[in-house]
Amino acid sequence: MALVVQKYGGTSVGDIERIKNVASRVIATKKQGHDVVVVVSAMAGETDKLIRLAQQVTPNPDERELDVLISTGEQVSIALLAIALKSMGYDAKSYLGFQIKIATDSVFGKARIMDIQKERIRNDLKENRVVVVAGFQGIDESNNITTLGRGGSDTSAVAIAAALEADVCEIYTDVDGVYTTDPNICEKARKLSKISYDEMLEMASLGAKVLQIRSVEFAKKYNVPIHVRSSFNDNPGTLVCKEDREMERVVVSGVTYNKNEAKIEIMHVPDVPGIAAKLFKPIADANIVVDMIIQTSSTEKGFADVAFTVPKSDFSKTLQIVKSSLKEIGGKEINADENIAKVSIVGVGMRSHSSVAAQMFSALAKEGINIHMISTSEIKISCIIDAKYTELAVRALHDAFGLDKPEVTEER
Amino acid sequence: MALVVQKYGGTSVGDIERIKNVASRVIATKKQGHDVVVVVSAMAGETDKLIRLAQQVTPNPDERELDVLISTGEQVSIALLAIALKSMGYDAKSYLGFQIKIATDSVFGKARIMDIQKERIRNDLKENRVVVVAGFQGIDESNNITTLGRGGSDTSAVAIAAALEADVCEIYTDVDGVYTTDPNICEKARKLSKISYDEMLEMASLGAKVLQIRSVEFAKKYNVPIHVRSSFNDNPGTLVCKEDREMERVVVSGVTYNKNEAKIEIMHVPDVPGIAAKLFKPIADANIVVDMIIQTSSTEKGFADVAFTVPKSDFSKTLQIVKSSLKEIGGKEINADENIAKVSIVGVGMRSHSSVAAQMFSALAKEGINIHMISTSEIKISCIIDAKYTELAVRALHDAFGLDKPEVTEER
Repeated sequence: MALVVQKYGGTSVGDIERIKNVASRVIATKKQGHDVVVVVSAMAGETDKLIRLAQQVTPNPDERELDVLISTGEQVSIALLAIALKSMGYDAKSYLGFQIKIATDSVFGKARIMDIQKERIRNDLKENRVVVVAGFQGIDESNNITTLGRGGSDTSAVAIAAALEADVCEIYTDVDGVYTTDPNICEKARKLSKISYDEMLEMASLGAKVLQIRSVEFAKKYNVPIHVRSSFNDNPGTLVCKEDREMERVVVSGVTYNKNEAKIEIMHVPDVPGIAAKLFKPIADANIVVDMIIQTSSTEKGFADVAFTVPKSDFSKTLQIVKSSLKEIGGKEINADENIAKVSIVGVGMRSHSSVAAQMFSALAKEGINIHMISTSEIKISCIIDAKYTELAVRALHDAFGLDKPEVTEER
Repeated sequence: MALVVQKYGGTSVGDIERIKNVASRVIATKKQGHDVVVVVSAMAGETDKLIRLAQQVTPNPDERELDVLISTGEQVSIALLAIALKSMGYDAKSYLGFQIKIATDSVFGKARIMDIQKERIRNDLKENRVVVVAGFQGIDESNNITTLGRGGSDTSAVAIAAALEADVCEIYTDVDGVYTTDPNICEKARKLSKISYDEMLEMASLGAKVLQIRSVEFAKKYNVPIHVRSSFNDNPGTLVCKEDREMERVVVSGVTYNKNEAKIEIMHVPDVPGIAAKLFKPIADANIVVDMIIQTSSTEKGFADVAFTVPKSDFSKTLQIVKSSLKEIGGKEINADENIAKVSIVGVGMRSHSSVAAQMFSALAKEGINIHMISTSEIKISCIIDAKYTELAVRALHDAFGLDKPEVTEER
């Protein structure tokens, strides 16, 4: 008998039939003898609908009130699921953030969970009750409703699993696991049976949209195993867990891409201390997150070229800032390019394998793909290339690292 | 400078434009120098939509969870109104039942307000903030969400006005006040400028749907003046307040009707003690509310005829019960009639005028309308007649008591 936290996303509770389907899944888990805590999102499309309502009032709705508004989506879901469970003969009780309670800070729209009280949940479980918790929401010190940001229900589920020391946190979604790469681009993409927290973090932040990044950070911190699976079938999904020896044998676990960045280059900048600070401080002050930065020697001695990437949505704003500080920096020329993409390979096995980068570069070279920028971390290598080569690059890398082949060991 | 509680019903906040209109009205009141607490209902149709969702899951949804579900309607309204107020430059804050808090008993679906904490509201008002409160909902001892029953937002508003000792509780609705009778039936119907709590209670329970009965009871108990008015114009509405001398001069304030009752007669029942108890106990046990009861001597000595009315929705159930106990009671025959209506005249002035009943009966007789049953209270006389005469009876009574003529005194 285990304690299982299950989280169902918006598409899994998208209509009444699907909510009943979720109830059946929960009951099946109960029948296996497990205690179940269920965390649900708003019905698919509801949160967007509520945001649109607010924006009909004003383009910039008050953040506290927006959280009051959008948190109703999950409230509807938990009530309907609890009604379904009770109508199917299983005792259940729904809880909102303030009832549990799920204490957060006061940053409306992207609050962070500080603490979760477990007494009420524990008591219900003891009485053989299914506990249904509203995802995405919490309550701050002054009893204001807060929300955790898009995908926040994942984080709610993992945090509850952590607080209850649950055996596993199952995240049900509309895909049946984490893939080696995007199956829409590369038909050889294969579902991973296991992936480490760190790899998942890299995958998530590089563009794979399966889990909210913060939920993975939470899971890593409290060592909560996450099982990502589909609510529409019974296939085993992907287990996101602590790194183990088996994983290290695999050099590369996945290939990801991101087309939402743009590149800015400043040519012929005097290579003196303080230049980088002068360049990047006003950008940071404008709340723009710079991703990759590289600096190379210019053709003329004593000068350098600086290149960096920012989200496309901040591209024009960044360009303005750079233009206005060009004189102060002493740069000669600005090159800007929106038609770029970032392709990355991720894998904890990289740490102990020296030739991975070279292998990546030659795989891209073989396809005639020019690399504009490179950035590496312990378990990831990213290359900026022309956007038009994205799909080709992803497939080439997937092949080069043999990601279509089954993992060495399959026992779990 | 006064403290004004304003309540806006579902049609008044039916869409974004109307919510903005409500915000403008609130701001206009603020500009007059008043403190404002606003209580809002769910947007028109929302509560029904949520109930339908639950009934798609099961015909008898769990009551606790149903309250979790339907209380979201008001949550959406308060957030949108607060967003509108802030976007128009006025500080505002929305509150749910648990945040205020509005303490109720635990009878889900028709909870009663026990206590309202006023600290948070008082503090906000001191800081010149508009306080926006979700109507219809409260919180029980165990932090469960409760709702107050249909029309419950009226009661929320009056209870908040009572707790804060507000100067007036304005109830905005889609009609501009309380009328002498239904204007759809009688074109001479006239808006009352004033009506006493007791009259309003009789009017409400007799079929005028302007205010939830419980809100009037609450207002009477705590002496909260209610101003019923339209949110779509600036006309003065009707003041529901303590009885005064001026009101007593008016004999009849209104004519009401109710077509939702049915009549059951049991003929030739032995006139011995305990018969009434035997007849009505099983009906009460089935949770059926009997309205009028009359007992008359039967043609044969030592026997009586008993007649009573029940809501049409309970008619067939009641008939079954009566049939099954007919033998025990010793009755001879049952007459049942669904085609009846109750017409009533209401007025505090009746107390000091002896001829009102006779006047009513002769007005009906003049139109050839036969009276089946009569029941009276201190300030009300009701007659059961054939349903087909309802409209005719209402118009005849309206004329007979001169309700189309302006009230004696108009100063307020």
